[in-house]
Amino acid sequence: MTTAPLPAPDALARALLLVAPSLDGDLVREVERITGRGAEPLTDTPPPDDAPLLCVGETLPDALRTDRLLWFHSVNAGTDPLLSAGPWPAPALLTRTVGRMGERIAQYVLGWMLAECQAVPEFTDRHARAHWERLPTELVAEQTALIYGTGRIGAAVGRLLGACGVRTVGVARTTRSGPPQGSGPVVPGSARVVPGFDRVVPGFDRVVPGFDRVIGAGEDTEALGEARWVISTLPLTGATEGFFGAARFAAVRGATFVNVGRGATVDMGALETALRDGRLRRAVLDVLPTEPAAPGDPVWKLPRTVITSHSSGITTDEDIHTDFAACWKTVAAGRRPELTVDVGRGY
Amino acid sequence: MTTAPLPAPDALARALLLVAPSLDGDLVREVERITGRGAEPLTDTPPPDDAPLLCVGETLPDALRTDRLLWFHSVNAGTDPLLSAGPWPAPALLTRTVGRMGERIAQYVLGWMLAECQAVPEFTDRHARAHWERLPTELVAEQTALIYGTGRIGAAVGRLLGACGVRTVGVARTTRSGPPQGSGPVVPGSARVVPGFDRVVPGFDRVVPGFDRVIGAGEDTEALGEARWVISTLPLTGATEGFFGAARFAAVRGATFVNVGRGATVDMGALETALRDGRLRRAVLDVLPTEPAAPGDPVWKLPRTVITSHSSGITTDEDIHTDFAACWKTVAAGRRPELTVDVGRGY
Repeated sequence: MTTAPLPAPDALARALLLVAPSLDGDLVREVERITGRGAEPLTDTPPPDDAPLLCVGETLPDALRTDRLLWFHSVNAGTDPLLSAGPWPAPALLTRTVGRMGERIAQYVLGWMLAECQAVPEFTDRHARAHWERLPTELVAEQTALIYGTGRIGAAVGRLLGACGVRTVGVARTTRSGPPQGSGPVVPGSARVVPGFDRVVPGFDRVVPGFDRVIGAGEDTEALGEARWVISTLPLTGATEGFFGAARFAAVRGATFVNVGRGATVDMGALETALRDGRLRRAVLDVLPTEPAAPGDPVWKLPRTVITSHSSGITTDEDIHTDFAACWKTVAAGRRPELTVDVGRGY
Repeated sequence: MTTAPLPAPDALARALLLVAPSLDGDLVREVERITGRGAEPLTDTPPPDDAPLLCVGETLPDALRTDRLLWFHSVNAGTDPLLSAGPWPAPALLTRTVGRMGERIAQYVLGWMLAECQAVPEFTDRHARAHWERLPTELVAEQTALIYGTGRIGAAVGRLLGACGVRTVGVARTTRSGPPQGSGPVVPGSARVVPGFDRVVPGFDRVVPGFDRVIGAGEDTEALGEARWVISTLPLTGATEGFFGAARFAAVRGATFVNVGRGATVDMGALETALRDGRLRRAVLDVLPTEPAAPGDPVWKLPRTVITSHSSGITTDEDIHTDFAACWKTVAAGRRPELTVDVGRGY
């Protein structure tokens, strides 16, 4: 785990508060109230004096990527754009906003699953044509959903689907903080290195709240073939780029793919092939490798696909305020916030 | 209770299997597998020999309404057409298919609620126009659903919505089999007659599994004003005809109305007024007073409404196969199936 030290109390006390100018006035006032100081706009130019910096925003200008940065609170859950835009100053704490994202994403996933099973677009179309037609519907109960990512969001999806009778199989990295690849010998027969994940123990099976069963990411071929739903909540890291590629899609047998993670975890060519050859029943893509998609982007022409413009896990101002307040309280008490980002791992 | 004796094992062993020609080939093969014999078509002409008859279908020709009939399994839940078409041969067992109707209707209701909250039709439209646009979505958690009918179907709806964090208020008749209106004096201050329901005790509040709270049908004005969702599972009886009329719709403040009960429980003029004046946010109508709706029916032009052609509580081939298999197993074990119809009572 690559984590910065906690901000020292005296440094935090004299830190300047910089807030992204894009944030709503009410939210800025809440942040000022929480930190007990006035906010200045977060811009490309560092403030003239050399006080430590406490920033709340979306992006960090290069000029502020220095040891003066004490703490950055991201108003988003995904911090990959922030981390990939430049080197992260080692001593700076990075926290993020998750809000009710798990709940929101879970309702998005279930909503689109039920929309497919209840033929919502088809009935909407029949209605527009004033055409009475009984259409077949499908029960999600007893179907199997394979949920990639067993963190907060994956578990929220698992819990909600489980409540509707769906069988939930989580796909996890075996060890959450295992040794980096190549850092030590792997004991034969006990564990092996799988691209995209630290280590996977064959036959590994453990109980994680929110799932009926959890398997390792290298053991998912059979499960992909049995799943009616393949749902990704994976973050984008060096290890998950193109994670859903030809090999995984080849193992699918009629599942619908729902991506609420990150677009670049999917090899779009492999996705298109799987849609065209019918292995994939449908795709619901909240995220794409390149966002926003331009009107001429061929992605709009993928068969049996709907794109929802990165709307599944919106964070509201209330989420930002609630999560920042919780982080502040925890740091002030000398503890590490749950919402701390491991800068090395990327989430 | 008017029940036939169970088929004797020897009679069952030599019974001819007759299956309605309208049934799908796969289903017929399943029935053949379950019973261990080949099927012949169920027609107006009785088979020539005098073996007992085991029939699976929808209707029973007069020529088969004889003591040769050992067992008839109905592929539908409602057996009133079957029983009213002619006298029932006393020794014959009648079983029916119920399938998973409560669960199906519950998933229909939740599916359309989430479709609205997740903007499924709007995203489908944006996708068709290759237009990237983040749309606001809504969480159903903590919203209130008023569910009319606290029987098997209403309770299934309540349980599923409750699992998604929705506050569920059931609306029930106070007494399930109270005295008919006018049959006796009503004690002042303790109970009163409410159109559509036997009796309602003011302030009545009881715990029913599947609901956070249950109120009486005469006490629903305030609850209608607070509800985000008004869901009807009411059957059609003399007492529920036009139940959702001007007075109830006038009490609504921005709810979406979902009808999975019976069409004639709704005064369509009052519904239209409430949609036009904005009291009703939307309407999702699985059922109509007149079905099917003709292409020229003005009901297709109601604002912010979708009609789903009486599809919410279908029985599938799998339901038929599952329920028939369960009945077969129970009869083979010498017990009476749960799905036995009391032919005197009619269900």
